[in-house]
Amino acid sequence: MSIEAAISELIPLLGDRLSRSKGDLAQHGRSETYFANMLPDAVAYPESTEEVSRILATCHAQDCPVVAWGTGTSLEGHALAARGGISLDLSRMNRVLAVHPEDMDAVVQPGITREALNTELRATGLFFSVDPGANASLGGMAATRASGTTTVRYGTMRDNVTGLEVVLADGRVIRTGTRARKSAAGYDLTGLFVGSEGTLGIITELTVRLRGQPEAISAAVCAFESVEAAVDTVIATIQSGISMARIEFVDASTARAFNLYAGREMPEKPHLLVEFHGSPAGVAEDAERLGELVAEFGGSDFAWSSRPEERNALWALRHNAYYACLGLRRGATALVTDVCVPISRLAEAVEATRADIAESPLEGPILGHVGDGNFHAILLVEPGNEAELAEALRLSSRMTERALAMGGTVTGEHGVGMGKLAYMPREHGEAWAVMGDIKAALDPKNILNPGKLVQRN
Amino acid sequence: MSIEAAISELIPLLGDRLSRSKGDLAQHGRSETYFANMLPDAVAYPESTEEVSRILATCHAQDCPVVAWGTGTSLEGHALAARGGISLDLSRMNRVLAVHPEDMDAVVQPGITREALNTELRATGLFFSVDPGANASLGGMAATRASGTTTVRYGTMRDNVTGLEVVLADGRVIRTGTRARKSAAGYDLTGLFVGSEGTLGIITELTVRLRGQPEAISAAVCAFESVEAAVDTVIATIQSGISMARIEFVDASTARAFNLYAGREMPEKPHLLVEFHGSPAGVAEDAERLGELVAEFGGSDFAWSSRPEERNALWALRHNAYYACLGLRRGATALVTDVCVPISRLAEAVEATRADIAESPLEGPILGHVGDGNFHAILLVEPGNEAELAEALRLSSRMTERALAMGGTVTGEHGVGMGKLAYMPREHGEAWAVMGDIKAALDPKNILNPGKLVQRN
Ligand SMILES: Cc1cc2nc3c(=O)[nH]c(=O)nc-3n(C[C@H](O)[C@H](O)[C@H](O)COP(=O)(O)OP(=O)(O)OC[C@H]3O[C@@H](n4cnc5c(N)ncnc54)[C@H](O)[C@@H]3O)c2cc1C
Ligand SMILES: Cc1cc2nc3c(=O)[nH]c(=O)nc-3n(C[C@H](O)[C@H](O)[C@H](O)COP(=O)(O)OP(=O)(O)OC[C@H]3O[C@@H](n4cnc5c(N)ncnc54)[C@H](O)[C@@H]3O)c2cc1C
Repeated sequence: MSIEAAISELIPLLGDRLSRSKGDLAQHGRSETYFANMLPDAVAYPESTEEVSRILATCHAQDCPVVAWGTGTSLEGHALAARGGISLDLSRMNRVLAVHPEDMDAVVQPGITREALNTELRATGLFFSVDPGANASLGGMAATRASGTTTVRYGTMRDNVTGLEVVLADGRVIRTGTRARKSAAGYDLTGLFVGSEGTLGIITELTVRLRGQPEAISAAVCAFESVEAAVDTVIATIQSGISMARIEFVDASTARAFNLYAGREMPEKPHLLVEFHGSPAGVAEDAERLGELVAEFGGSDFAWSSRPEERNALWALRHNAYYACLGLRRGATALVTDVCVPISRLAEAVEATRADIAESPLEGPILGHVGDGNFHAILLVEPGNEAELAEALRLSSRMTERALAMGGTVTGEHGVGMGKLAYMPREHGEAWAVMGDIKAALDPKNILNPGKLVQRN
Repeated sequence: MSIEAAISELIPLLGDRLSRSKGDLAQHGRSETYFANMLPDAVAYPESTEEVSRILATCHAQDCPVVAWGTGTSLEGHALAARGGISLDLSRMNRVLAVHPEDMDAVVQPGITREALNTELRATGLFFSVDPGANASLGGMAATRASGTTTVRYGTMRDNVTGLEVVLADGRVIRTGTRARKSAAGYDLTGLFVGSEGTLGIITELTVRLRGQPEAISAAVCAFESVEAAVDTVIATIQSGISMARIEFVDASTARAFNLYAGREMPEKPHLLVEFHGSPAGVAEDAERLGELVAEFGGSDFAWSSRPEERNALWALRHNAYYACLGLRRGATALVTDVCVPISRLAEAVEATRADIAESPLEGPILGHVGDGNFHAILLVEPGNEAELAEALRLSSRMTERALAMGGTVTGEHGVGMGKLAYMPREHGEAWAVMGDIKAALDPKNILNPGKLVQRN
């Protein structure tokens, strides 16, 4: 019973789709952020549910760890092979299996990326709404319960995945959910697997909700004199019932990063980036009301655009914000914080974070999906500099403790992985033990992404 | 180790809040529908989480079944004491603990009813959206993953419960979720307990989302010549992106029941009941577009109302539809079906149901939350008439098999209880075993609502 035995057994099944090449191992043993590399012993490239099932049955029998790999963009070391074993790369299972325009859903394989899915949907008048900054895989997004700029309107992966096919630790294949819009038929297994970070099962198929392309879209950028003024505008907007499709905050430092990265000329001040979806009349009405609120909170440089190219450039920039911020310091990597707090505490939380960073030697632009109360500080550190990493961890810890004290969460969207593991007892108390019990029930041998998310060793 | 021993131990704790009176047992041993009575051995009326915890710890030690009781309006025998034991009546834990207008959420105890909650919220400009026909308790609604007429816009209990306090089978108290709008911190335990029908834990506190009272509301009623015309109008409305707050279908037989019950004069034809929420301009635009679609599908008697009294009368009637339908046959009880299918199959599913009922000796009005693809046949039977009950079960079975064949679910909102238990293997396959594993992990002694929802005995 060993990793090597599992690998030997899998060779006849997968042939050269079971790789032990240095390049493959290295590529599947690194992350986008500050974690040290942790290499798998082999990388498997399954092409069907049946193959995933056989791989898991083998690894289960042999006690061999299996770590699913989507596109590897997760930010908390989720997909690192903390105990070695097999990295299960799902990129070859990347097809759209069905689109049902009348029901506004699609059935897809887990390896498809969100951009590829939306490209395939273009002709239908429908789109898939969840958009993390990275061009992540749908399986990875479901596994991390990802969200993005449009979550304030259309929800997270929790709200947009209606059914799954999952291969369990022992190789059994189950289906969760139905194609109906809602169901009260027993425990919400779909919801349980969404956000489970590959620790309870491997997602081999997803049914996702689609949205109608809005009749009209308009977008705006607006600068503010202070963080509070920007955040208070967000709160007032939400409370006035204006329905935003997107409302993003970037601070002065992020604005500077945008200017450097994309040759923009934004004033180096806090900004809101906003978008409305609706009918032409509805969008105009919303825009007018927002304009009034912006003026009330002293916003300036209020620029509207309904031109698609300008809008696309704006959101492309937002989606590249992480790389733009890394550009503020040559060769840097980052620790990305991800707290989410009740909206009523948002201004206070952002302001205290800004003050913490101002006192620290590290640079840390702040930005976020403020309509959800979710924001990130991108703490720039030199790779391998232990003192800087320690300082970044100290800042991150202050932010997470503050978020918990405010009734919030240590991770709004990135997930637990390894980076947030230490906070789980504080955030969940005894409920974390219950997560461990569920893990033990579904993966008694702890072969699925061991060392992540739950309290087991 | 016995029920009697548990009861003896609980007397000092609860005093006269542990009742064994005939009246109490009878009241907690019946349901609203066709199930035979199943009495508990005692009824407990806890007043705090601490008391619930002590009751569960005692019952756990003594292997005594505990069945939570909200208002007892569930339709599948959920709250019947199938194995005796304690009926845990939560009606004394009925307070609003906090309202956070800025965050648009409230923290409530499980025994509060939806009407009582909305009465308390009146001055805040906010409301709680989920509205099953009955004036159910929030705890019961969460436990059954209830939905209602406004789900098409605001979602089910799954979408509107953001956090819980739960007492586990052994008396441990946990908290799930946070007050932030979203979180990616581990398994979605909130979602797991919502819809678990009292089989995994007792809900002692809920954090729920509130919605802003819309600036403008308008409602309409419209008659159609056929079921298809009405359902096709619904599909066209959804696809045209018109955002309805409510869209309800009632068939000719339900219209007749309404006329008898409330002295209305609706034509005995299929109807849609619709409501819009939004800005004055938005609501007007939506109404106009719906009017065009209704005309296209040959609808008539299209009557608009923005007067609150008329609207309230309309929705009160809809909420009383079950009792109105019972009124079609003196002394009847009912088997209420609850399938939910993909919208694209809705017309076909409703039409086939109508045809089944037309061929049967039983009367069965059809109505439903058609915007979600969810509809009910209210099959009227004489209490105690075995032949009629068998016929109703036969009809119900045809409908559920058809829904499954269409990719739908056997229960859109009422839940499993005892009435839908037999369909779980068909709907879930191997996933039902996974539900059983989760049950075993959280309630190893099977004391929580035994005999319901999962595959254990
Ligand atoms: C520039 C940048 C911007 C980002 N912005 C956002 C953002 O706005 N919002 C947000 O939520 N995240 C954001 N992220 C984080 C990341 O994109 C998300 O976490 C994303 O969901 C990860 O998807 P992935 O396909 O890369 O998954 P991976 O990183 O490959 O895997 C993530 C986890 O999911 C598991 N997994 C992957 N596929 C499966 C499967 N099929 N079955 C079971 N488990 C699986 C893995 O084992 C791992 O635990 C950003 C990242 C970057 C680099
Ligand atoms: C006229 C009428 C119309 C209806 N219309 C709808 C509708 O439109 N939509 C809909 O979804 N339902 C509808 N129902 C069904 C019913 O109202 C719902 O199922 C409701 O959610 C039940 O709530 P309750 O408080 O009555 O729960 P109960 O019937 O008391 O209990 C239901 C289940 O939840 C468990 N439970 C109760 N409280 C707790 C708790 N605190 N913790 C853990 N478990 C608990 C019980 O053990 C039981 O298993 C209707 C019923 C009637 C009679």
